[in-house]
This record gives sequence, C-alpha cells and structure tokens, in this order.
Amino acid sequence: MEIASLNVGIIGAGRIGRVHAKNLSTCVAGATPRMIADPDLDAAREVAAACRIPEAIADYHELLASREIAAVVICSPTDTHTTIIIEAASAGKHIFCEKPIDHTLAGTDRALEAVARAGVKLQVGFNRRFDANAVRVRQAVENGEIGAPHLLHIISRDPYPPPIAYIKASGGLFADMTIHDFDMARFLIRSEVEEVYVAAGVLVDPAIGQAGDLDTAVIVLRFANGTIGTIDNSRRAVYGYDQRLEVFGSKGAIRTENNHPNAAVISERACIRRDLPHHFFMDRYAESFVAEMAAFVRAVESDAPTPVTGYDARRAMAMALAARRSHDERRAVSLSEISGERA
Amino acid sequence: MEIASLNVGIIGAGRIGRVHAKNLSTCVAGATPRMIADPDLDAAREVAAACRIPEAIADYHELLASREIAAVVICSPTDTHTTIIIEAASAGKHIFCEKPIDHTLAGTDRALEAVARAGVKLQVGFNRRFDANAVRVRQAVENGEIGAPHLLHIISRDPYPPPIAYIKASGGLFADMTIHDFDMARFLIRSEVEEVYVAAGVLVDPAIGQAGDLDTAVIVLRFANGTIGTIDNSRRAVYGYDQRLEVFGSKGAIRTENNHPNAAVISERACIRRDLPHHFFMDRYAESFVAEMAAFVRAVESDAPTPVTGYDARRAMAMALAARRSHDERRAVSLSEISGERA
Amino acid sequence: MEIASLNVGIIGAGRIGRVHAKNLSTCVAGATPRMIADPDLDAAREVAAACRIPEAIADYHELLASREIAAVVICSPTDTHTTIIIEAASAGKHIFCEKPIDHTLAGTDRALEAVARAGVKLQVGFNRRFDANAVRVRQAVENGEIGAPHLLHIISRDPYPPPIAYIKASGGLFADMTIHDFDMARFLIRSEVEEVYVAAGVLVDPAIGQAGDLDTAVIVLRFANGTIGTIDNSRRAVYGYDQRLEVFGSKGAIRTENNHPNAAVISERACIRRDLPHHFFMDRYAESFVAEMAAFVRAVESDAPTPVTGYDARRAMAMALAARRSHDERRAVSLSEISGERA
Amino acid sequence: MEIASLNVGIIGAGRIGRVHAKNLSTCVAGATPRMIADPDLDAAREVAAACRIPEAIADYHELLASREIAAVVICSPTDTHTTIIIEAASAGKHIFCEKPIDHTLAGTDRALEAVARAGVKLQVGFNRRFDANAVRVRQAVENGEIGAPHLLHIISRDPYPPPIAYIKASGGLFADMTIHDFDMARFLIRSEVEEVYVAAGVLVDPAIGQAGDLDTAVIVLRFANGTIGTIDNSRRAVYGYDQRLEVFGSKGAIRTENNHPNAAVISERACIRRDLPHHFFMDRYAESFVAEMAAFVRAVESDAPTPVTGYDARRAMAMALAARRSHDERRAVSLSEISGERA
Repeated sequence: MEIASLNVGIIGAGRIGRVHAKNLSTCVAGATPRMIADPDLDAAREVAAACRIPEAIADYHELLASREIAAVVICSPTDTHTTIIIEAASAGKHIFCEKPIDHTLAGTDRALEAVARAGVKLQVGFNRRFDANAVRVRQAVENGEIGAPHLLHIISRDPYPPPIAYIKASGGLFADMTIHDFDMARFLIRSEVEEVYVAAGVLVDPAIGQAGDLDTAVIVLRFANGTIGTIDNSRRAVYGYDQRLEVFGSKGAIRTENNHPNAAVISERACIRRDLPHHFFMDRYAESFVAEMAAFVRAVESDAPTPVTGYDARRAMAMALAARRSHDERRAVSLSEISGERA
Repeated sequence: MEIASLNVGIIGAGRIGRVHAKNLSTCVAGATPRMIADPDLDAAREVAAACRIPEAIADYHELLASREIAAVVICSPTDTHTTIIIEAASAGKHIFCEKPIDHTLAGTDRALEAVARAGVKLQVGFNRRFDANAVRVRQAVENGEIGAPHLLHIISRDPYPPPIAYIKASGGLFADMTIHDFDMARFLIRSEVEEVYVAAGVLVDPAIGQAGDLDTAVIVLRFANGTIGTIDNSRRAVYGYDQRLEVFGSKGAIRTENNHPNAAVISERACIRRDLPHHFFMDRYAESFVAEMAAFVRAVESDAPTPVTGYDARRAMAMALAARRSHDERRAVSLSEISGERA
Repeated sequence: MEIASLNVGIIGAGRIGRVHAKNLSTCVAGATPRMIADPDLDAAREVAAACRIPEAIADYHELLASREIAAVVICSPTDTHTTIIIEAASAGKHIFCEKPIDHTLAGTDRALEAVARAGVKLQVGFNRRFDANAVRVRQAVENGEIGAPHLLHIISRDPYPPPIAYIKASGGLFADMTIHDFDMARFLIRSEVEEVYVAAGVLVDPAIGQAGDLDTAVIVLRFANGTIGTIDNSRRAVYGYDQRLEVFGSKGAIRTENNHPNAAVISERACIRRDLPHHFFMDRYAESFVAEMAAFVRAVESDAPTPVTGYDARRAMAMALAARRSHDERRAVSLSEISGERA
Repeated sequence: MEIASLNVGIIGAGRIGRVHAKNLSTCVAGATPRMIADPDLDAAREVAAACRIPEAIADYHELLASREIAAVVICSPTDTHTTIIIEAASAGKHIFCEKPIDHTLAGTDRALEAVARAGVKLQVGFNRRFDANAVRVRQAVENGEIGAPHLLHIISRDPYPPPIAYIKASGGLFADMTIHDFDMARFLIRSEVEEVYVAAGVLVDPAIGQAGDLDTAVIVLRFANGTIGTIDNSRRAVYGYDQRLEVFGSKGAIRTENNHPNAAVISERACIRRDLPHHFFMDRYAESFVAEMAAFVRAVESDAPTPVTGYDARRAMAMALAARRSHDERRAVSLSEISGERA
C-alpha cells in the first residue's frame, strides 16, 4: 500500500511562492504540489514548469474548488490573506499562510474565526522558528540550560531597504520587518509581552521617512515573566543580513552568530578577514523554509496542532501596532491598550 | 639634566587605592608615590610597604599640606570626594578622583567650581576609556570606518552583586555601575545623550530590591546626533564579567568580544569549550588602570587638558539621575528635566 | 521545446548509493534516476521507493544494456569498480565512480584506458572538492589572494573507526581515508606531489594494528612548486568529524574552521561552549555530494571535461601507495618510485 | 623585619637585556637590578638610567666580582654564554641565561658541568613556557583533559626575517628559531623526542639560502610515548607573528589561537575583519618574560629547582642538530645518532 501524499495548491507565484513551490516539489516528503495560481498566468506557468507542478491557473478560486487539493499555501499580497483564508476555510482546505495575516486585528480575528469554524488547520509563515540557531536558543531556554531568562536581545538588520513603493504598502517597519522579531521574542522567551517601548528614527534614507515609515529602531519589550528584551532593526547593514540572538539568564547565556557561506579566514598584510555572512533571507533561512513546510505537512498528516498558530500571528501584529503607537506618542505602550487585546 | 618626577599622594588605601598605588610605584613613568593616607593607618602602612611608598599617614590633610606633593589621587569613599576635591584644589594640587565625584549634581558643581577657581587639573577615573577595545571602537567611529553611527549596544554585566551594605551606600545601580556605561556611551558616540528610557527590575536577588535598588536593566539612550543606544546591565553573570560593545553605522559595524585569560579552545566528547573570560574588573581592566594614570601624569607634566574631565563626570551622573527617574515614573526622561542641566 | 533530462542508472544501493539516489531524485536539475541495481534486491527496491526511481534490479548488467540509460553512477564495492567501468565504457555510458577506482595502479590504468577508448566521460567521487570551504581555499590560491603557496596543512579526523572487517578490505588508512586528503592537497596547491614521508602508528585501537593497518598518521608532502604540506589523520576524534584546511603563502594565509549545525555559543558557570561540529561526512559534506553530481550532469550535458578525472584518482592512489611504502621502510618515498609512475 | 631582595646583575644591554632590565626594575617582586654590563658602555648607561639601575659598567667581570650581586642574567651574544656561565658559576652566582646556551653539545656540557660543580642554579630563557596559552595546553595534557596525546602541531612563524648578517651568526633556522618550538614540543607532550624528520626549503628570500640557511620548514617529531608532532616554521608571515598550538588526544583536543591587541571585529561592505595579531615576540610574549624572571627569582629565593633547566637547553639543541642533519641527508634522524646523546 502506498502512503498518500498531501496534494497542495499554491496561491501566488512571486518570490516566496517560488520558494515554497520548489521546496514542496523536491525536499518536502509527503506533499505534492498539484496546482499553482497567480493572476499573472505566465508567472504561474514558469514556476509550474520549473517545479514540475501539473497545473498553472490564473484564478485561485479554481484551485479552492478542486476536490483534489487538500491544503493551500497562501503567498499572495498581505491585503488578500484574510479573504483567501476565509474562502479556503469554507472550502475545507488546510491553510499555510505567509505572515502577516492582516494589518488589522479585526481582520485577523475574522480569519481566525473562519478557520475555527471550519475546523481546518492554519499555520503562519514565521519560518525563523525553524532555523537551527533559533531552535537551539529556544531549546536552551526550555531545558533550563541558562536558567530563568532575564534579558533578550534580537539583532535583525536587512542588507538594503525594499523599494519605496513596497514600504508604502507594507504596513511599515514594525508590521513588515519587526513582526518576525516580535514572533521570535515570544518563541524564545515563552512568555507574553506586556509592554512595548520604541526609540526609532530615519537614519538610512530620508525617502523612507517621507513615505511615513522608519528605518532604524530599538524596541524594548517587557515580558510577563519579568524578562526585558530589545530588538535592534535597521533597513540597511552594508555588510549583509545581520541576524543574531542572545538570551541571558540566571544560569548563563546563549547567543548566536551569523551564518556564513564558508568558514574560511584569511590573514593578510592589512587584517584578518572572512567573507560576508549570507546576504539575505533567501540564503540565510533557506533550510527553515523547508522545515516549516515539512512541519505543516506533518501537522496535517497526523492531525496535530500546527507549530505556528493564528494566535501567534495575531499577537505579533498587536505588538507591531503597539510599537507604532509607542513611537507616535513617545511613551511605553501596554499591549492591553491595543483594541480588543488582553495583555 | 634629570626629568623631574611628579610627586603623588594617594588618599584611600582600599581596593582601588592599592591598584593606583601599585601602578604608580611600578608601571607609570614620570610619577612617584610619596605618601598614602587612610584613616585605617595599618592599611595605609601595608600598601606603603608593598609599593615602597616612603610615608603612610592617617589624616590626608597632612598630605595636602605637604609642599612636596604636586598631585593627589582620591580613592576614598564617594561621599568624601567633593570635600577633598575642594580642599585639594585650594591647596593647589592636581587631582585624579575616582568616579563618581558626587551623587548630586549640586555637589559635583561645587567641586568643579573649586577646581576651576584654583586652575588645577582634574581627571575622573573612567578607566574604561583607556581599554584597548573601547579605544578601537572609538577610533572606528572617529575615523569614519563605520560611517555615521546609528545604533550602539553596551553589554555590561558583573559576575556577582556587591554586598547589600555596599548597595545601600552606592547610590544604586545607575550611579554605581551603569555610570561607567553612561560615560562609555558618550565616549564612543561623541554626541550628547538627550533622552533616557529605562526598563529594569529585580531578577537576581530580592534583597537588592528590598534595599531599594535594581539588579537588571535595559537603558535606551537617544543621542543628539540621532544615534539610538542600549545598555544592558546585570549584577550577576554566572560566567563572569561580560563587557561587550557594538556600534552600527551607515558604512558598517564594529563590535568587541570579551577578553580571556588564554586563547585555548578545547574540543571534547560533549562540546567545544573555552575557559571563562576575565572574572572581574581588576583583571579585565588592569591595563586601563595603568593607562589612565599615565595619561593623568602626562596631562600634568605637559600642562595639557586631562582626557576625562569633571564635565564628563557631571554628565554621566545626570544620566544616572535621569535613568532612576525614568524607572520610577515609567516614562522616557529628557536630560533637560534634570535640575540645572541643559541637554 | 523541453530540455531532455539525463537518464541515470545507479549501481549499488548501500550508504553512498542512497545519497546519490536521493540527490538525483530531488536536488540535481537535469538528471533523472531511472534504474537502481543491487545484488540485494530488497535494498534496491527500498531506495527506489524512497526516491521514486521507476525500476529496481539485482543485476547491473541489465542496466548497462538499457538504451534508456545514458550515464551510470557506480557505488558498488571498490573491488568491482574497474570491471564495471570497463563494461560501462564499452556500453557507451558516461560514468560517475566512487573513489578509489582500484587499489592498484595497474587496475586503475585498465579502467582509464577503457574510458579513453570509448570516449565516454568519467568523474571520480572526490566530493570534497565541491565543499564551500575547499572551494574558497582553492580560489584564494588560484586568484593570488595569499601569494605563492609555501605551506599546506590538512587536518582530517574521523569521529570513530570503521569496523575491523571494513578495515581489512579497505586497502588501509591511506587508500581508504587519506586518499581524500591526497586529492585535496593536489586540488588546493595546483602542483604535483613529488615526495611523501609518513610518521604513523596505532594509537586508537590495537585491533586496527592487528588487522595490519594504522589509525594515526602525519604525512608530509613535497610539491613540485616547492610547497611543503602535512596531512593529519586520526580514525577517532571523540568530538566528531574534524576537517580543517590551511594554506600559508607569500602574501598571507587562509584557513577554514569546522562547520557546525548551529552557531550558538553558551556561556555558563564552568566555561564558554558550543555544540559539536557536524558529526560525520554525511552531514558535513551533504551539499558537496549534491554539487559533485550536478557538476557531473553539467559536464555530460555540455560535453565538457569532468572536474575530477580518472588521472586524479590514479594520482591519489599512487600517493597512497607511496605513503604505505614510506611507513614500511621508514624513509621518504619519491612518487617516481611507485611502479609506472612518472613524478 | 624586611624581606631581602635578590640583587641581580645583567650582562648585555641589547634588545633582550633591556626587556629583563625593565621587568626586574618594575614588575618582578623580590629582585633588584644592581648593575648592568655591556662592552658598549653607553648602551649600558642608557638602560641603567631608564630602569634606575645604580651601576653601569663595560666589563662584566667586575659584576661577577661584586659581592653584592647574587644572581646574573646573561643576555650577551650566544658565543659568549658558555664562558660566562662557567665564570659566573665559579663566582657562585645563580644564573639565568638566554637560549641557546651553546651551538654545540660539547660546549653546552661544559657549561652544565660548571653549574653542577658550583651548585648554583641555572635557568634557561625558554620564555614561552610561561605564556598563558602554552601553560593552558600543558595543563590540559597534564590533567588528562584530552586523554593520552596522539598528535601535536606547533605553528611558529615570524613576521619578517632577521638581517642576513644575523642569520649567518645565528646557527641557522633550527638553532635560532625552531629551538623555541623544540622546547615547546617537549614541554607540552612531557615525553622525549626520539626521531626528527625535516622537509624544508628557501621560499621567502634567496639571500637566506645563499647564506646557507633555510626559511621555511616542516619538522616531524616522534616522541617516546608514541605522539607524532609537527612544527611549521616560516621566517615571514606578512600578517604578523603567528604562534599557535594544538594537541590532539584520545579524549579530545586543545588548540590556541593568536593573541590580538584588541578583540574588536569590524563588519563592512567588503568583509568581516579584525586587526592583525600582536606583531612580534616583544608584544606577544611580554607577560611571559616577566613570568619567567619571577619564576627564576622564586627558585633562587626558595632554593627550589628552576623550571627550565640546562638539560632542557641541551635537549633542544640536540633536536636542532638532528633537524639540520635530517635536512642535509634527506632522511629521518634518530636523536641517538647525535653525538653523545642518549635518545
């Protein structure tokens, strides 16, 4: 008897859609991508050809209507997520959705309710939870290697800013970029954030400020268990993607360095040097994209909870909203202030 | 012709007094310790014997009255600093004083005025400015290696808390411990801090909280030039003294690791490991204590400004006061709010 | 028009056969595994099922007879390599063969002659040439980053010895294990080795000595261009697989560290530690196995020379034979002494 | 009662003489330099002034005749060591002598016999035994942290070659430079070397070859306990002084990295870099020069054996002679072949 493979439909053939398509067609056991949908049909066809996906379509509704498809992977623009989640849930499909679900908590809540009603699974694309470094830090906290956590530091700097057009639509630094770090903070400390304080500015590019956004920020987090955390964000680290974690606790500390394409060190007349770290998330987090998809497939297969839930997405978005308010009002903001939120 | 050596009197034969006495008697060229004063005459005598200092006395006034003595090194308890500075200045002595000068800005100002009136030199014991790592970071900022600074991080954790009695008299975490980091922040970024925000707690030892103090803190600094900084303090890092710096800027970043007694790495069945870093400031900053004293002697010899001024001491104390107020009032505090202070 | 995929037959369903089967079925573009042969038919079937290979057979001759198959990947025991290479060449198949081709130079030569006569391509499985660290060192030598090479060091230690039965059949330390390092030495320095000196012993397990082999060795290499190299081999490094390279030259040096599963460092009461490096070659060199196969497929597709030739295999085996003679006769041995070999 | 200080006379006011003079006059407790002798009287006077040594003389015999002097520190050229040691021993002085004692074993033996007859103490200037890294490696071997040693690697590269005139008088690479590494090998492994094999050449500067010397070498050592070691020497590492150690054993490995003036790492557009290591031995081994002298003073004070004996010097010189013979005769050379030597 053959083990049934999970038939997956992919919605969106953009950058992240391609990543998931490729991973599902090669490295993720137990799943088979059957359809890919994108309004840009040529893009869908190109990905389908490259990844041996049998069908490429323009309208994702066709995919939702297919009885063959058991699960969808939503990689479309953020402002379509809530609608597609609701439709997919109604169609009884299990759902993997890229972060964030929605730029509003109200929208997020509508999506989560639809998922709950339909009884389907939902996993959100916080892929960094599956990174070997993050997993190791979480493990150290979980197994008491470093005792009770006291301090957390997340450094998360991009190699260059996105286009201004993207920034205008992205929901801003906190909702677009820091949201990964908000989720990481909760993942590592295993306690909820109760208060957020932001010191931020526009130091990289004035055009980002003119677009109403920020490019450099320090965010202070206060957790329910007493831990105090910081997130350090910059839209431009000239030396490449800078992704480091540190948790300090009563029995010790754990911290991670950047990952590099090679481990060679060169000594020469002027200095001791090594090549730059992985340049951006596609290289740096390549393995975590595979791992999150494998985890989603396993959760569906074994009818187990997904490891990154809709609640996780909601909570991270609430932190993004609190961060923006803290910046605007120049004060610490309690998560309980954010509409509908109990801290 | 022989070069005249600077005759120095040391006031205080406690821990830091011994360090300065030893350094002056051995490694600092151009200076000779002639007298050491301490109300505990036995302590003064012991240090004098160990460091070949000709005279040990109980009352420092005798030292101030000696025509032989050209400069004093004040290592007595903080609450005596202002009085002794005023007396020493009146006596025409050049002054090296341990930090902080005074727990109040008013007291600090009285000391600074006396120094200004007398026209003597004053250097404050922010020894870390003379540490090779700090010097290298400052140099990178100064010569533009990392471009304009955007973000600063100072990690400064002690291996264990001082006795509760000490904590009660110390002026608290910010005035006693963070004050070094406040000075380091100004030294590295070369711009004044305008606003301070504190998230702090008692996570190490409840007795510290009962004494009215904090043992764990994150301090956010906003500088006039737009740089955003954080200081991470803990009274107890079980793995020893943790002293790291990072400045991130428009053209790159510089960061320092801890210094270790040896550079050996051991690979064994369980892990790859190395010995702990230097355990506390006596070992970690040993060379900087020599260098600051040499700098003081050079400043006196060549009638040049001292590299760490009374203004530096005043400014760091103002930051400590702002930090406490931020903690007490749970809000960001502008330095301009602190009495008499222009931000 | 569709690009034709290279149809591949795999001979051998053991450990390394599985690796190549999996890589060919997922990560290597342009190739499709069509058949797998193993006298143990169940093993062949199991791999076929796991890797979606349509046909599993017991006798590889069937595979060689198939007109569908354009290339073979030989993963059978070493003593079958020469025979299968000759048969595959006669059948006009392109050949990827695991190292070494043969424990004798005469056997190797027969295989190479058959390949030359048939005009097929042959690539040998020195996968480490495709490792990112090795590539980076080679690149530094090639582009003159470190000037003319003077000194080379290869550290290559296994985590544990193979079973004694394997050791008896393996051809010994030099032919089985050091052969990778011999090839690496030639690859990095880009000059031929002219003389070999060995200092070796049995320090890990007396049973290895009783089997006529060695478990610990230092091999000194003298290259035609004057470079002097060392190889350090041990059959048992308790901390895991230790694979490091260093080339020192007139303008600098390059060296590589071990690769680790994560980049986390833990500071605790006793020490600063990190987890062990990748435990053995399956993890450590996983990516290089993919890369070598992709290179083979590209060479066949584009009718270009393969990057690791039969001559490379012959030369490395000659070095292994010289190393054994050096050990037996306790003297430096010229490669020109090895039968039929011109240094 | 006052503790008597050891009155020391220094013979030789050259580079290393100055180092010992400065250390004895400042950092070494329990000793006082009273006289310094050098045929170049101006040099002696200059050092005396800088280090507050009361008397500077041209002829060291005057120093040996002084009843005030209890110990001598011999920093004169190597070809004078044996004569001065014999004279100093006759005069009843304790002796600290720079390495090597003599370029011949016969000369060395005459010096050792004189010392033995006189019953004075003799310590040889293998300062690296007092380096924190070397001490830590030795400790790991001694306390079994890495189990039984199997393999040793010493990397020891100078930043630039000495002048050709120096090379001609120095006794050659092995007697002048490698001798430190020969001693280090014995110190770390705690077993005698029985056989030496050398692969060496002239790769740095042809003028060194014309002077009859070598500038690049790999030396293989076989120890009585089975350990196999290598020494890697180059007269010119463009990135500075390269001093690293590694011992691999049955339970693990220990290795040391170079020491750096600061622990700062800079990330920039092109690479991740740090400043060069300490440039040469004066900086790199500064602390070990203090420590070896303190150890000598303690040995004299407490009438205990010195930690680096004349036998150590003799053994290292025998290894240097064996190394040269190995190079000349292109074969492994047993230490027992070296005249008068029992391996």
